Amino acid sequence: MEQTTMPYSVDLLLRIRERKPLIHHITNAVVMNDTANITLAIGALPVMAHALEEVEEMVSLASALVLNIGTLTPAQVEAMLRAGKRANARGIPIVLDPVGAGATRLRTEAAHRLLAELRIAVVRGNAAEIGALIGVSGETRGVESISVAEKHEAIARRAATELRCVVAITGVQDIVTDGIRQALIDNGHPWLASITGSGCMATSLVGAFLAVEPDAFTAATAALVAMGLAGELAAPRAGGPGTFRSHLLDAVANLDTSKLIQGQKVSIA
Amino acid sequence: MEQTTMPYSVDLLLRIRERKPLIHHITNAVVMNDTANITLAIGALPVMAHALEEVEEMVSLASALVLNIGTLTPAQVEAMLRAGKRANARGIPIVLDPVGAGATRLRTEAAHRLLAELRIAVVRGNAAEIGALIGVSGETRGVESISVAEKHEAIARRAATELRCVVAITGVQDIVTDGIRQALIDNGHPWLASITGSGCMATSLVGAFLAVEPDAFTAATAALVAMGLAGELAAPRAGGPGTFRSHLLDAVANLDTSKLIQGQKVSIA
Amino acid sequence: MEQTTMPYSVDLLLRIRERKPLIHHITNAVVMNDTANITLAIGALPVMAHALEEVEEMVSLASALVLNIGTLTPAQVEAMLRAGKRANARGIPIVLDPVGAGATRLRTEAAHRLLAELRIAVVRGNAAEIGALIGVSGETRGVESISVAEKHEAIARRAATELRCVVAITGVQDIVTDGIRQALIDNGHPWLASITGSGCMATSLVGAFLAVEPDAFTAATAALVAMGLAGELAAPRAGGPGTFRSHLLDAVANLDTSKLIQGQKVSIA
Repeated sequence: MEQTTMPYSVDLLLRIRERKPLIHHITNAVVMNDTANITLAIGALPVMAHALEEVEEMVSLASALVLNIGTLTPAQVEAMLRAGKRANARGIPIVLDPVGAGATRLRTEAAHRLLAELRIAVVRGNAAEIGALIGVSGETRGVESISVAEKHEAIARRAATELRCVVAITGVQDIVTDGIRQALIDNGHPWLASITGSGCMATSLVGAFLAVEPDAFTAATAALVAMGLAGELAAPRAGGPGTFRSHLLDAVANLDTSKLIQGQKVSIA
Repeated sequence: MEQTTMPYSVDLLLRIRERKPLIHHITNAVVMNDTANITLAIGALPVMAHALEEVEEMVSLASALVLNIGTLTPAQVEAMLRAGKRANARGIPIVLDPVGAGATRLRTEAAHRLLAELRIAVVRGNAAEIGALIGVSGETRGVESISVAEKHEAIARRAATELRCVVAITGVQDIVTDGIRQALIDNGHPWLASITGSGCMATSLVGAFLAVEPDAFTAATAALVAMGLAGELAAPRAGGPGTFRSHLLDAVANLDTSKLIQGQKVSIA
Repeated sequence: MEQTTMPYSVDLLLRIRERKPLIHHITNAVVMNDTANITLAIGALPVMAHALEEVEEMVSLASALVLNIGTLTPAQVEAMLRAGKRANARGIPIVLDPVGAGATRLRTEAAHRLLAELRIAVVRGNAAEIGALIGVSGETRGVESISVAEKHEAIARRAATELRCVVAITGVQDIVTDGIRQALIDNGHPWLASITGSGCMATSLVGAFLAVEPDAFTAATAALVAMGLAGELAAPRAGGPGTFRSHLLDAVANLDTSKLIQGQKVSIA
């Protein structure tokens, strides 16, 4: 496991801002506004559309598709499948955020169905959600024999292998793996957990990076570095979660080459 | 009517932060993000889920259920009834926010049906909404013989008796009553009325306090004190409603024992 | 084309704050919160309601109706038609925001149907959206012979004539025209394009001004001056799009007579 400077993440940010890719979201009602705003902040263009009648047309205009199953309904699952199949046919990358997988059967089954019927480039969730996708508990209670970090790494690797896609688990330390390569990202700030939708926002950033970088492992890693570093830069300016959320968007918009080079804390193995 | 120091509200805040109860919301699309964020800020965990297929499972994981009828649809009423019945069966407390009751038949009838078919612990609304639930006008125009405060107290008491639950009317002065006990809360700031969803956010706080305090009168009073005091603490830092909203979330997150003891303006009779 | 001081916009702001008109929105899920908050900030009262069962009753209580087709579903189109017909019958003005017209058939056809079946007072969109309504490209690539501004003016004038309503195109320069009169508004700030929903928020302000001013050309012009000026006043206080959004709401709430008189950059021909 060696420390790298990963200069490519810098190039990706510039590429997003130059190309301004359209990122089609079919996402939950809680975070629609925040995910649209963070997509704009990184330099891409968000569009939210979930009607069965328009998702295929809309995704055809997009450079990446973000599927997020928070506040899910069965009709929305159909819309996600339609949009996803069109995206697959066109080579448009898909990132899936399995919000609440494991909490209810609707969500767990929806995530499984999307993973079975679509070719997903990246799944991003917390350890419990990713664990639920492969039938293991992401909870760490009662597991004293191995460290939390090692447990999360094991879940991520197994999920990547079983689901045949890049898996990103976010938490105190973020893990990205395609089953072979693995990135550990120590960027971040505890206040990211104090606002709703920070995970969903990270997923939107993965969508933006996927739109300009065909290697999903690289795209997901770069996105999580950007998100975590923005959290670090925002926190000192904030007095709590309300102002933190505003400064987080500022920080994403104000990311640049030198901040990324100096600030990234990523090790790739 | 005597001034009390109500030290129990302090304990409740600590209890929320220790237990981090899950608060299931079936709520309106305008305020989903704000209510999720204020639930996190007080120290609880929000989950938003409204699909018929998952509400019973989701509420079973929760420690309180928040029902809010803004942007209502008939399908949502069914989801609220299903979730509410399961909550009642499990002893999970319910708080109802009858947004817009009295404005349209859909909303008035939905509120009546929820109150008739479910055991609701607390109803929180403004005077017009609570008045509409018992068929009296909460409007104060043309009622010069008694003061506004007295009129609101009368509506609250009558509603508590008729609806057999704790009633909380928020306004310049907040009133909480179970028909016998009554709390008058003078915490608050005019800017709370300048942002959308401050009432809905107060209702979410009631849900968080209900999750850790079985006496609904105590829980609702403590929640409204917390909300009003946070408004007071946020206002001096803000330059208008946009920054006020950010500082309000900060202030809720930064509430602590000494602030509550020093800042509460509540009289209980 | 002469510079005017347009003192009436000042009167309109005072009129909104005195009358506090109710503005019924049937709008998209991304911007519901922001549009509710900007409606409050200008001094009006927002209500969001989209259920078929209540839109006619709700719009009857309102002084203006805002229709916005972002995140559209076919059911929502029906709700918009019902609410719109009732509004027309009662003389309640309607403003339409054709978000994404031209991007998908669902949206383009919905906009056409609303324009065909309802009497719309004002349509507000960007050049591409307004162009799509009259079957011309609002894109300016490859059109070097005339300036962007002239092209947008031509689209606006033609749309106003064909659609028989006031058309407002927002962009670097805003254009309002009823086909005969034309206002060019140079208020604004580039950061308005860095947050989601700034166009939708402008449309909500048009609704608030329509509620107190029967001349739709005047109402739309005054609303866009207010929006652009608020953007100018907010920008110096912000460090990026997140804090800009908070300060934008503050700036709208803090607009007053002297700021409008001193700050407006509008020429009417």
